[in-house]
Amino acid sequence: MSGSVVVGLDVGGTSTRATALALDGRRLGSGRAGGGNPTSHGAERAAGELLAALREALAGVDPARVRGGTIGLAGAGLLLADPAGRDAFDRAWHDAGLRCPYAVHGDALVAYASGTASPDGTVLIAGTGAIAAGVRELRLDRVADGHGWLLGDAGSGFWLGREAVRRLLADLDRGHAPGRLATGVLTELLGSAEVAARPRDTVDALVQTVTRRPPVELARLAPLVVAAAVDGEPVACGLLDEAAAHLAESAARIRPAGEVSPIVLGGGLLTGATPLAAAVRAEIARRWPDAPLHSAGDGAAAAAWLAARDLPEVTDPVALHALLVPRTA
Amino acid sequence: MSGSVVVGLDVGGTSTRATALALDGRRLGSGRAGGGNPTSHGAERAAGELLAALREALAGVDPARVRGGTIGLAGAGLLLADPAGRDAFDRAWHDAGLRCPYAVHGDALVAYASGTASPDGTVLIAGTGAIAAGVRELRLDRVADGHGWLLGDAGSGFWLGREAVRRLLADLDRGHAPGRLATGVLTELLGSAEVAARPRDTVDALVQTVTRRPPVELARLAPLVVAAAVDGEPVACGLLDEAAAHLAESAARIRPAGEVSPIVLGGGLLTGATPLAAAVRAEIARRWPDAPLHSAGDGAAAAAWLAARDLPEVTDPVALHALLVPRTA
Repeated sequence: MSGSVVVGLDVGGTSTRATALALDGRRLGSGRAGGGNPTSHGAERAAGELLAALREALAGVDPARVRGGTIGLAGAGLLLADPAGRDAFDRAWHDAGLRCPYAVHGDALVAYASGTASPDGTVLIAGTGAIAAGVRELRLDRVADGHGWLLGDAGSGFWLGREAVRRLLADLDRGHAPGRLATGVLTELLGSAEVAARPRDTVDALVQTVTRRPPVELARLAPLVVAAAVDGEPVACGLLDEAAAHLAESAARIRPAGEVSPIVLGGGLLTGATPLAAAVRAEIARRWPDAPLHSAGDGAAAAAWLAARDLPEVTDPVALHALLVPRTA
Repeated sequence: MSGSVVVGLDVGGTSTRATALALDGRRLGSGRAGGGNPTSHGAERAAGELLAALREALAGVDPARVRGGTIGLAGAGLLLADPAGRDAFDRAWHDAGLRCPYAVHGDALVAYASGTASPDGTVLIAGTGAIAAGVRELRLDRVADGHGWLLGDAGSGFWLGREAVRRLLADLDRGHAPGRLATGVLTELLGSAEVAARPRDTVDALVQTVTRRPPVELARLAPLVVAAAVDGEPVACGLLDEAAAHLAESAARIRPAGEVSPIVLGGGLLTGATPLAAAVRAEIARRWPDAPLHSAGDGAAAAAWLAARDLPEVTDPVALHALLVPRTA
């Protein structure tokens, strides 16, 4: 059959997802491969994962029908500034049989477009790290935070994990029995909930255990905080509220009070009905009561939509968004 | 001449100081050598610096007159748990001609004893890191914070430096012109106060500059914060107030409300009439209005006093403290 096809790719640190969509919304193929972030994995390896995901998505599609494509990835700017990396991506695109041009956008823009078709708005993302970005005419505009674990990422998974350990250490300093969340963190880090006769020995063991590992691994404790908050554990609930306040404050750095454009929540900690998303929604309702709120959805489909918007036959990109990008909350 | 002599050593990360004191308070000699912290420099090198400082202090003293000695150092517990390290220190002591026993105490206890002769109290230290410790019968009792830059050291030089960079990044995120402190930090880190046409480029350059270095080097920015606060710069003043609140909160983890035993302030950021010391004094006056407050002084002399206290001829250790340890604020 004929008709234009668009391809979208969502390249993340742990997986690369590709989708091929007809303009009537039919999904002609999808593919999945390993993490392909060129910043952390190198452009060659990233391009290899890209090709694997593309080939899977295009298995039943005549590549000559593909009229456009978009690749969304973290560190898009770094890739575009690196001729060797750009070459590697060009080769992967060509090796997949594609002859149309493609665009590269930041993963934050793709997350935004997975939640709304509105050209202007804000995206707020919390996963291992945290970042807020303004979107204008479907381009990333100003950015807040995303400064990394040492200097920022306030309210992120790293932040939640570090704060959970800090609360545990404070309990031990005070000679208090660790609470429910603190007990979970203690068990996770030391393999036992037991506090030494001299609590300072447990403090020292915790500090040594954490500082022996890459700091970003503190983000692995975030699911403990989220699970404890779901159970109503007060320290965990307090941490989620603090994280939500930090995230909203980051958004406020780039988004005027009273702004009514949509806000999209993305990243593992904010996508869907997570407890942190609920806390962030409450903060946002306080600061921007009239802003529509959306959850990020299918990034690969959103990337495909971003490519389709530029095709001459597309006259109503908003209607096309409804066809191509699965509806989220 | 005859009469007992005591030797005190204050072993820090950047210098080792030794003093030889007669029990009437006369200083018979003093010595100085390079940093000798066995945790950061290795026990062999630390012992070498110890020996150099000791030999200088004992140049005019018959070592047979030396009846006792104390070595104060960070990580004392680690040294005592390491037979090879302990051997290296024993050899240095012996090579200096000393035949009396010596004791090893944590630098926090020595800092405490440099400010007061009271057997019970609290010491609060802020330099590159930050720690609070209770003292009972002139032994370190419970400890709060000192958890290192990744998990703690709240209110320390590292903390001040990191927060100063975070305030600068927040200014840039917001599109504000950096304030006075932020301009100083920007110049210190990037060599120029200029903000790029796209402020995000300056943000990225700052994050890269800081993350390329060891994190603890953020403490090098603390003097900028202190100097700006002396000039009344509002962000710097706010940071010092926050740091003081963190430090007082750490002390409160181990010190009951209303406690009236003395508090000694130590470390480069709190020793003497520093602006952070002033802010901490205000916090302490609020929480423990009846506690005498002292500044840490001559650590080597305090170490010598700790050794002298155990001599049979010493009947009034408080009076001896007044003779041996120079009075501080």
